[in-house]
Amino acid sequence: MDNSYGTLFKITTFGESHGRGVGVVIDGCPAGIDLDKSFIQSELSRRKPGQSKIVTQRKEPDEFEILSGEFEGKSTGTPLTFMIWNTNQKSHDYSHIAEKFRPSHADYTYQEKYGVRDYRGGGRSSARETAARVAAGAVAKLALSQLGISIQAYVSQVGALTLNKPYTELDLGNTESNDVRCPDSAMAQQMFELIDKTRKNQDTIGGVVACVIKGAPVGLGEPVFDRFHAELGKAMLSINAVKGFEIGSGFEGVKQNGSEHNDPFFVEDGFVKTTTNNSGGVQGGITNGQDIYFNTAFKPVATIMKDQDSIDQHGNAAVVSGKGRHDPCVVPRAVPIVEAMAAVVTLDFYMRNKARQL
Amino acid sequence: MDNSYGTLFKITTFGESHGRGVGVVIDGCPAGIDLDKSFIQSELSRRKPGQSKIVTQRKEPDEFEILSGEFEGKSTGTPLTFMIWNTNQKSHDYSHIAEKFRPSHADYTYQEKYGVRDYRGGGRSSARETAARVAAGAVAKLALSQLGISIQAYVSQVGALTLNKPYTELDLGNTESNDVRCPDSAMAQQMFELIDKTRKNQDTIGGVVACVIKGAPVGLGEPVFDRFHAELGKAMLSINAVKGFEIGSGFEGVKQNGSEHNDPFFVEDGFVKTTTNNSGGVQGGITNGQDIYFNTAFKPVATIMKDQDSIDQHGNAAVVSGKGRHDPCVVPRAVPIVEAMAAVVTLDFYMRNKARQL
Amino acid sequence: MDNSYGTLFKITTFGESHGRGVGVVIDGCPAGIDLDKSFIQSELSRRKPGQSKIVTQRKEPDEFEILSGEFEGKSTGTPLTFMIWNTNQKSHDYSHIAEKFRPSHADYTYQEKYGVRDYRGGGRSSARETAARVAAGAVAKLALSQLGISIQAYVSQVGALTLNKPYTELDLGNTESNDVRCPDSAMAQQMFELIDKTRKNQDTIGGVVACVIKGAPVGLGEPVFDRFHAELGKAMLSINAVKGFEIGSGFEGVKQNGSEHNDPFFVEDGFVKTTTNNSGGVQGGITNGQDIYFNTAFKPVATIMKDQDSIDQHGNAAVVSGKGRHDPCVVPRAVPIVEAMAAVVTLDFYMRNKARQL
Amino acid sequence: MDNSYGTLFKITTFGESHGRGVGVVIDGCPAGIDLDKSFIQSELSRRKPGQSKIVTQRKEPDEFEILSGEFEGKSTGTPLTFMIWNTNQKSHDYSHIAEKFRPSHADYTYQEKYGVRDYRGGGRSSARETAARVAAGAVAKLALSQLGISIQAYVSQVGALTLNKPYTELDLGNTESNDVRCPDSAMAQQMFELIDKTRKNQDTIGGVVACVIKGAPVGLGEPVFDRFHAELGKAMLSINAVKGFEIGSGFEGVKQNGSEHNDPFFVEDGFVKTTTNNSGGVQGGITNGQDIYFNTAFKPVATIMKDQDSIDQHGNAAVVSGKGRHDPCVVPRAVPIVEAMAAVVTLDFYMRNKARQL
Repeated sequence: MDNSYGTLFKITTFGESHGRGVGVVIDGCPAGIDLDKSFIQSELSRRKPGQSKIVTQRKEPDEFEILSGEFEGKSTGTPLTFMIWNTNQKSHDYSHIAEKFRPSHADYTYQEKYGVRDYRGGGRSSARETAARVAAGAVAKLALSQLGISIQAYVSQVGALTLNKPYTELDLGNTESNDVRCPDSAMAQQMFELIDKTRKNQDTIGGVVACVIKGAPVGLGEPVFDRFHAELGKAMLSINAVKGFEIGSGFEGVKQNGSEHNDPFFVEDGFVKTTTNNSGGVQGGITNGQDIYFNTAFKPVATIMKDQDSIDQHGNAAVVSGKGRHDPCVVPRAVPIVEAMAAVVTLDFYMRNKARQL
Repeated sequence: MDNSYGTLFKITTFGESHGRGVGVVIDGCPAGIDLDKSFIQSELSRRKPGQSKIVTQRKEPDEFEILSGEFEGKSTGTPLTFMIWNTNQKSHDYSHIAEKFRPSHADYTYQEKYGVRDYRGGGRSSARETAARVAAGAVAKLALSQLGISIQAYVSQVGALTLNKPYTELDLGNTESNDVRCPDSAMAQQMFELIDKTRKNQDTIGGVVACVIKGAPVGLGEPVFDRFHAELGKAMLSINAVKGFEIGSGFEGVKQNGSEHNDPFFVEDGFVKTTTNNSGGVQGGITNGQDIYFNTAFKPVATIMKDQDSIDQHGNAAVVSGKGRHDPCVVPRAVPIVEAMAAVVTLDFYMRNKARQL
Repeated sequence: MDNSYGTLFKITTFGESHGRGVGVVIDGCPAGIDLDKSFIQSELSRRKPGQSKIVTQRKEPDEFEILSGEFEGKSTGTPLTFMIWNTNQKSHDYSHIAEKFRPSHADYTYQEKYGVRDYRGGGRSSARETAARVAAGAVAKLALSQLGISIQAYVSQVGALTLNKPYTELDLGNTESNDVRCPDSAMAQQMFELIDKTRKNQDTIGGVVACVIKGAPVGLGEPVFDRFHAELGKAMLSINAVKGFEIGSGFEGVKQNGSEHNDPFFVEDGFVKTTTNNSGGVQGGITNGQDIYFNTAFKPVATIMKDQDSIDQHGNAAVVSGKGRHDPCVVPRAVPIVEAMAAVVTLDFYMRNKARQL
Repeated sequence: MDNSYGTLFKITTFGESHGRGVGVVIDGCPAGIDLDKSFIQSELSRRKPGQSKIVTQRKEPDEFEILSGEFEGKSTGTPLTFMIWNTNQKSHDYSHIAEKFRPSHADYTYQEKYGVRDYRGGGRSSARETAARVAAGAVAKLALSQLGISIQAYVSQVGALTLNKPYTELDLGNTESNDVRCPDSAMAQQMFELIDKTRKNQDTIGGVVACVIKGAPVGLGEPVFDRFHAELGKAMLSINAVKGFEIGSGFEGVKQNGSEHNDPFFVEDGFVKTTTNNSGGVQGGITNGQDIYFNTAFKPVATIMKDQDSIDQHGNAAVVSGKGRHDPCVVPRAVPIVEAMAAVVTLDFYMRNKARQL
């Protein structure tokens, strides 16, 4: 556990922001998956720094190397390892915080838990770790696509700007057409301006990523503890800066009566469907064949350019000054991370369900 | 997995609504815990049916028997097994739904996943399973109390009625003084009336349970995947009817700027503290010694007394008629369940952290 | 872990020799298995005390009750729980050893590890725990029989009396025809006499159980750590009194040259076979479709009727006097236990392998 | 699972014989361990090819690089990753077996299980994978040495040449003084000659590695399934070419009576000891503070230089000709591998035991 996720399709990430790089071992990957390198690279590029004006301007190409588990372009069923070498570490950038605890960062908790701490760029607690997840998620997506399952995330909120439309009324194909990754162009423009203004104010702001999984068969999810949405929630909450998760009607749904909230069944073309989908595609912890949709809340990035009061490792008052190149808002780059973790969860449950059918 | 939760303090629940009963095996329970029977029973009684006018009127005493792992009143370190025998099963009550799929229940998904299904009272998917969790949670609480860690949950929302006060402004000692388990008496009265009205309307309504963990030391939580709040979120999302989870500032926090959201450190009486606690006591996935607080959203109970359109196992249209004795709102009885799962998560992380310190 | 075994077909045993009973939760059992009660009982009866003159004369009927997971005679895919109630506990028998450490028993190590200890009949460390394994193994066998896989164990050695024939030259159908469970009648008679003489000498003696798995498909076993025989070995070594395990040519095989030991492949009737089977049906940790055979060594039972020098909990010298009703040789009753664990291992690997095939 | 071993000190190995290299991620390594590079390298050098005349003459320096988890020479508590790059792959050496199944190798089983197979040097099934284990074991040894626990293995049998002395009568400090790694010089010389003769005969031969763990405290091991020796057995059986494992009196002990085999307790200098140690330091699955000793049986290496009859992937008869540089006997190089796995098992149990003590 700890740095591993999954039961049968199990990923183990390793590496730090300013060490040799970050990587991931995928153990349990089905053999024979065509490892489409350009697709995997395109996923990493959706997450990489420097892709637009509203994200961190660090220069990291985020190119990957496969260290094991591939033969003649296909997965062999043995551990499939990706390495994304660090190329742009500027360790000298971090000397000013070597002994200080940045507010709402992991500096203090890592120091107390482990007694030692790689303070360069946050070390292991850096969001750079998520590059490894995106590589693993790309492999999961390649497997899921063989099964007719697709996953698409998008930005639905930045600060107080909220896209008040259900995903069914949006053209999700539009998501990648703008830097924010919001499928509604007008809202995307407002969000862009808010993020850019926040950046100029040397501040940061939070946001929400919505995600839809289409094509998942009935039967994924293992009650009672490993319900589909419980694992999905854990996977999302394990991403840096995430403070909340909801599926289907979520927090809003508590205001409803059961007579409104229940999703009536009907049969169409031989398929069981529901007229509404407040359940978000999961009932009793098991997928019901409808679309699965959920929201993930990201707090504002903790690194700001303004001076902040804090303490140092010795307990003395200290001022933390923002330096370096950071994201004013994390959600545009978080979209592929949410998709990656959703892909890992879905494929893992697919395999777990398959195992039960003698 | 599946029906087990936890890494070192591991609980495995079993049993159905209308079978012999529900039970739990606790594997990894530290030896020498004084198994205070009256405390364990009092926890079960907080969850049991029939405790007030606004909960289901089923009569289940929910008394427990210990099947293993106890010697002379103490845990022995071997599997500690609790059994809560069913005494009030009325299987004939369920014949009317044996072949029908109740909307937003687990009937359809269990049938499809497993091919067979114990339709009596929902079988394994019944919330009766949570009685086993409460028993396990009571043991975890007994261990945590030795460590100075306490957990208290309360109802903070019913339908649209929201307790708009942070927990720090509430007298949580008041929680058990009313049937709703809301620590604010005036709000509790309004919530009671809303639930009672909903019940008379043969309908149900959702709600939110808030929870606070006090006294947890710095250092609990195992990055990167097993962050404290990621496991906590999974544990909550694994409870029947839960559709959302948030920690600290949660979904509201996304509206803030980093400069507002960050929690400045200071030292008081030799202890590191933060002036605000938007982090909810967890930073980088590790507890920071401040209070941990979080919210869990429960959808309206799916069983309503009104007729609903649905289908049967053969795909034919069918009307599902509500019968039996059900909860109009689940949150008053969910309070001890949320506490139980929080206790299991916290103790498990305590043990995991301890293991690392050679 | 600890009291659980298996990845997908996972069993968790609980209970003590002189408590309420012993039980097992099977989590991950495929749904729809016909739970043939008379078969399950017959398996338990092969292990139960009092079945012949050369085993312990305790009277335990070892009848089972299903506490969960069954509906209309079939497994439902939810936790399947068996309870075997204790009916013949004589706790007063054990007062004489309450504070003494019996040589080569678990008394001392349990006391030191846990600080408390249920000294009645060994508590959790009693071989009574294996009754729960046999119940779980019976379910695994029912599932395996659907897949054409069978498992048969037999006694191949008692003390120095060794059955020097490979299993291929024995009529394994003969195994249950005598009290020793040795398929060679002449050898069975000698072994019976040796055990009986040992019993009369108030002593005990060790033995070896051999086992053959037939019909397992190619591809079971997950390299590199979860090799088929590594898990099989762990499963056997987890049985009380086991001190050794070998597969195929085992310890004798080290004397051979590679040119003798290697198993040449050939094709017969479209099936790949090997002319010899020194590998024991496993190559590279994966089953190769040939018979799997292995040996498990059981030390002499530690409880003897003679007086022995030892110490008490306070470190004082003490004499331990044998009392009660014990087995002079454990292997006749160990045969169904070896089969049960082998069944659990094989079914678990079958499910793990199936999960990988998208 | 699969390519991971351990519960809290968990190692995941990856890599192939002829790919980029082999590596290991250690998840759960305690923070603050001084990562003594020269010690780690010396362990790898004990395993590396070409170290003497009686091992394979491949030239692999087996130097390691740390990819993550180290800061200023110490472990940080985050995943510690070692990479041992391949430098001497000669893929063209393997074209002659690309489509053939070598007898008693993993070629056939991998092909059938995964459908694809990296045939170069055995790919993942190559013993080269054990280099990664040795690196991880070196870290475990560094942690154990802080706890006063030491591990020493040696060769006790080659072919029929058996060192008929208990370890207590040997000077284990002598082990590294000869190429065979047998602490008895006269026997070492005989073994050397046997191996050398076998090599000249273009054949291979098996052997046994004995191992002693000293200084382990009372209380390691988690009954009932994760007994100390059950995990130890699994760990050993997961090493390439291992076909048997025994602890303490092992297979020979079955011939004894209980009155001979039992280990009487006594107290000396305030410590509980046993006059004999047939238990091998483990009772009831838990260490009792005495030395732990065990044997691991290695079959003769499957790769021989002689022609062998076999089949190809199409089921046609084929002759497999030995080529390349291989070990005539694996046990001299297996000594550090056995120690490494024993170290991982012991440290993992140490941490598991510690977690239970609130």
